[in-house]
Amino acid sequence: MAKKKRNGALPRSNSKIRILPLGGLSEIGKNMTVVECDEDIIIIDCGLGFPDDDMLGIDLVIPDISYLQDKEDRIRGIFITHGHEDHIGALPYVLGSLHVPVYATKLTLGILANKLAEQKYETQPDLVCVQAGDVIEAGKFSVEFVHVNHSIADACALAIKTSLGMIVHSGDFKVDYTPVDGEVTDLARLGEIGKKGVLLLMCESTNSEREGYTPSERSVGRSLDNIFLRHPDKRIIIATFSSNVHRVQQIIDASERYGRKVAVTGRSMLNILSAATELGYMHVQESTVIDIADIRKYPPEKLTIISTGSQGEPMSALYRMAFSGHDRVQLGPSDLVVISAHAIPGNEKLVGNIVNELCRRGISVFRDQSVSVHVSGHACAEELKLMHALTKPRYFMPVHGEYKHLYAHKELACDMGMPADRVFVSEIGKVLEIDRKGARFNGTEPAGNVLVDGLGVGDVGNIVLRDRRHLSEDGLIVVVAAVDTAYMQIASGPDVVSRGFVYVRENEELIDEFRSIAAEVLEDCLSGGKCDWTQMKNAVRDTLSRAIYQKTKRRPMILPIIMNI
Amino acid sequence: MAKKKRNGALPRSNSKIRILPLGGLSEIGKNMTVVECDEDIIIIDCGLGFPDDDMLGIDLVIPDISYLQDKEDRIRGIFITHGHEDHIGALPYVLGSLHVPVYATKLTLGILANKLAEQKYETQPDLVCVQAGDVIEAGKFSVEFVHVNHSIADACALAIKTSLGMIVHSGDFKVDYTPVDGEVTDLARLGEIGKKGVLLLMCESTNSEREGYTPSERSVGRSLDNIFLRHPDKRIIIATFSSNVHRVQQIIDASERYGRKVAVTGRSMLNILSAATELGYMHVQESTVIDIADIRKYPPEKLTIISTGSQGEPMSALYRMAFSGHDRVQLGPSDLVVISAHAIPGNEKLVGNIVNELCRRGISVFRDQSVSVHVSGHACAEELKLMHALTKPRYFMPVHGEYKHLYAHKELACDMGMPADRVFVSEIGKVLEIDRKGARFNGTEPAGNVLVDGLGVGDVGNIVLRDRRHLSEDGLIVVVAAVDTAYMQIASGPDVVSRGFVYVRENEELIDEFRSIAAEVLEDCLSGGKCDWTQMKNAVRDTLSRAIYQKTKRRPMILPIIMNI
Repeated sequence: MAKKKRNGALPRSNSKIRILPLGGLSEIGKNMTVVECDEDIIIIDCGLGFPDDDMLGIDLVIPDISYLQDKEDRIRGIFITHGHEDHIGALPYVLGSLHVPVYATKLTLGILANKLAEQKYETQPDLVCVQAGDVIEAGKFSVEFVHVNHSIADACALAIKTSLGMIVHSGDFKVDYTPVDGEVTDLARLGEIGKKGVLLLMCESTNSEREGYTPSERSVGRSLDNIFLRHPDKRIIIATFSSNVHRVQQIIDASERYGRKVAVTGRSMLNILSAATELGYMHVQESTVIDIADIRKYPPEKLTIISTGSQGEPMSALYRMAFSGHDRVQLGPSDLVVISAHAIPGNEKLVGNIVNELCRRGISVFRDQSVSVHVSGHACAEELKLMHALTKPRYFMPVHGEYKHLYAHKELACDMGMPADRVFVSEIGKVLEIDRKGARFNGTEPAGNVLVDGLGVGDVGNIVLRDRRHLSEDGLIVVVAAVDTAYMQIASGPDVVSRGFVYVRENEELIDEFRSIAAEVLEDCLSGGKCDWTQMKNAVRDTLSRAIYQKTKRRPMILPIIMNI
Repeated sequence: MAKKKRNGALPRSNSKIRILPLGGLSEIGKNMTVVECDEDIIIIDCGLGFPDDDMLGIDLVIPDISYLQDKEDRIRGIFITHGHEDHIGALPYVLGSLHVPVYATKLTLGILANKLAEQKYETQPDLVCVQAGDVIEAGKFSVEFVHVNHSIADACALAIKTSLGMIVHSGDFKVDYTPVDGEVTDLARLGEIGKKGVLLLMCESTNSEREGYTPSERSVGRSLDNIFLRHPDKRIIIATFSSNVHRVQQIIDASERYGRKVAVTGRSMLNILSAATELGYMHVQESTVIDIADIRKYPPEKLTIISTGSQGEPMSALYRMAFSGHDRVQLGPSDLVVISAHAIPGNEKLVGNIVNELCRRGISVFRDQSVSVHVSGHACAEELKLMHALTKPRYFMPVHGEYKHLYAHKELACDMGMPADRVFVSEIGKVLEIDRKGARFNGTEPAGNVLVDGLGVGDVGNIVLRDRRHLSEDGLIVVVAAVDTAYMQIASGPDVVSRGFVYVRENEELIDEFRSIAAEVLEDCLSGGKCDWTQMKNAVRDTLSRAIYQKTKRRPMILPIIMNI
């Protein structure tokens, strides 16, 4: 099949490939890509995103899949690269309407199963377990899972064979020559695939702005060991990402080496730990792990507590421990807290709050600023170059990152000799079309954010968010009046009720003033003998708005409600 | 006067000193410290803070000065260390109620005058210009201004002589051996003061967690020169802090060296530039600076544009240029943008937005991640140690920083041999008392945040903020009904109006359902024949709240308004 060198001709196939990203470009998270070959469709990943600061009250964001809604019969499967939220988190929603098989490795399915158990489906999702090296025939595609290193175990890249040539999707990856599970990213297989010719590389771009290499996960183990060695008198609390099974393994290993019991706190940590142990991804002596309820039975200096909350999330286990709200763990000066994670942009202040509180209470804190207790799970520039050198793609589409990351990744590829016109920096909804004549952008399809708020999926849009922003800035003033239309006069009110505007008890005069203004406007409107509700409401809103701005330089939302008696 | 060695006895004085921080501890900004010696009071700095993420709609934060309100006759002066907002920004508010002299250096007063001009005072503020080396007699205090390096010109530490000994306040400082204005922090004078004995050092802690030294401002000049040298074909746009006069000077110097004209955009940049030039802090050839309106008259590659917006502030000059909203400057691929600043924690995303947009438009961007186009204005650990070594204080109070910074600064002092019981990590409102017997915390005074929102100073408090947060999360539902108390029946309504909850047009059924529930509750209440308004409102709120949460897992604010006809 499809053999070619980087600059050789494309094979004589009449097929047409379409690449449609539904998320993950010009944003962090929400990764999802549609790949079409003629009538067949496969989907790579199905992740969620976290709301921006201006998406007030929103819990999470999932991709708009309206493009796929009427194409269920053409979809041959969803292929998941690994078990992080930004790659699997939208599945519980999407599987409600798309009944297609999901292919993923064992740990990924273990984590996914936990999430799906919280939902109710008419048709049970069709989950297919694969392992690195497996090839899935999916219509005109055959999809191979290729082992890669990442900050979660059992992560894969995908090598997708089509009649026009091979498409490689890196997933999230790094190159760890001394990984905790002993398996280096399958560079040899990637090289073999590259030697046969790669039509298109889609490669993650998270760390494309960072020079050099990402250090090995094992280097964290050495730092942890050093901390355990130097603090035999302290209880040690370590917060990290629950999904980082290898990190947790190293914490347990160090604890065992230094004769400590391990207790775990935080729901997601408990969930993933039990899944990982059950599935054989973690190796723990049976006597090591104890219940958090039993920590009083052991001397504190013989304990390690593994916790969630490394991003400072309010109400996480670490947060509750720091602010004395944890029912099992009370921290004090004989404790040592390690935050084994890097604050994701936007979370610095949350993490800072916890560190401040721990310091205030005399508790020692280690973070990656002072000692290397964390490494990234993503490839830095030199590792990305290695991926390009191995796969030598004809075309390249940088994926997973804000625009600046995609752009830096493009520059990296061009520095390695790739012609700029073969690099496609895309955006969600934009279709890259490839046929035997070449590759080009061709049109767009629906794509975007679907906001999840409580049980509501998609019922909060721009108008609702605009109102929330308005309310959050300067609060609200409700003006209520009842109008007797028979006599054209005010039957009751107007009353003025405010929330989030000023402290009312100390500003009664101001509110009285607004009430008089509203009364005057209403009487003025009614004196004409007509009763135009819209006009009355607008008159109240406009007059009051001007008066309030002049007096306070604020613009609360003004909500006139006029009742008809 | 008061001579003593670090561990010697305190002088036989009956005076009592009280140190009362009103801001700047366990927070960034809002720096203000009260120093009392018996009946005399002086104040060090009077700055503003920026609102936390949870202070919705708040413009800025100033210190609560209620402790000072009845003590105007005892206050001998406000001593300002330098002209940054977090040291002078509350003065326009405070000078309205405290009529006391303000002492500051020339540039600081120049910036302050700009701010005060926007206010109206019954009594004109009494501003006294000083220079480094000056000593001001202020009741029992004599206050010496000591030159220090910082990211603004004309910054000073204060050496405050009292009958119990010398108090040194570092202000914000770094040690720059090759400063742009040629004057190194006056280490010799600090050493001389230290040799005579220092009772108390209050020293800033911003960079206490960072090892080593902060590089010289001049190193930025070298990076800038390199950028100018390598890009003779580009128009260069540089965003930086307007108050960093030396940075701006270096940009102008480089422009002159490479034969470029300089245009300036952004209100604060124009203000400070004109003040600094007028007062002799900037040296610019008359022909160099051109009006931003005239940039079309020169070839782009012969232009430098200096801009505000280095923190990504929406509607700043850089923001408007990036998002094509600037009336004079349209950017394109022949432009090069330098962001000569470091994103303050919390602003990373704002800066990222601008960088993404610039990349998207094919504009080259240089930031301090890739090249050293910025240095900090604050002392790192080694410089702090130098300050301690020079002043050898008997007591030490770390100031200016979150708790973790104060704590790291304490550890640094203890590492240098200071006994832990002589280090006072304080908080706002906590009084440190010093007399001939020693130093100790003794009681508290009122202190806190006064929130400024529009023209309102202090009229937004916790209740208003709580309501804004509630409204921002899940929006609002207003239930209005008119009740005819004569017949004990509903005369009109109930009407249900929502904002920020769901998109109403697509959820009319849901709103109708809420209306029925409200009607049912009201009729139920009225059927009893009694008309208890509070009980009716509570019943509507509680029943509706439960129903809504069950249906949507959201908790909008519910505002029942029942009118009496």
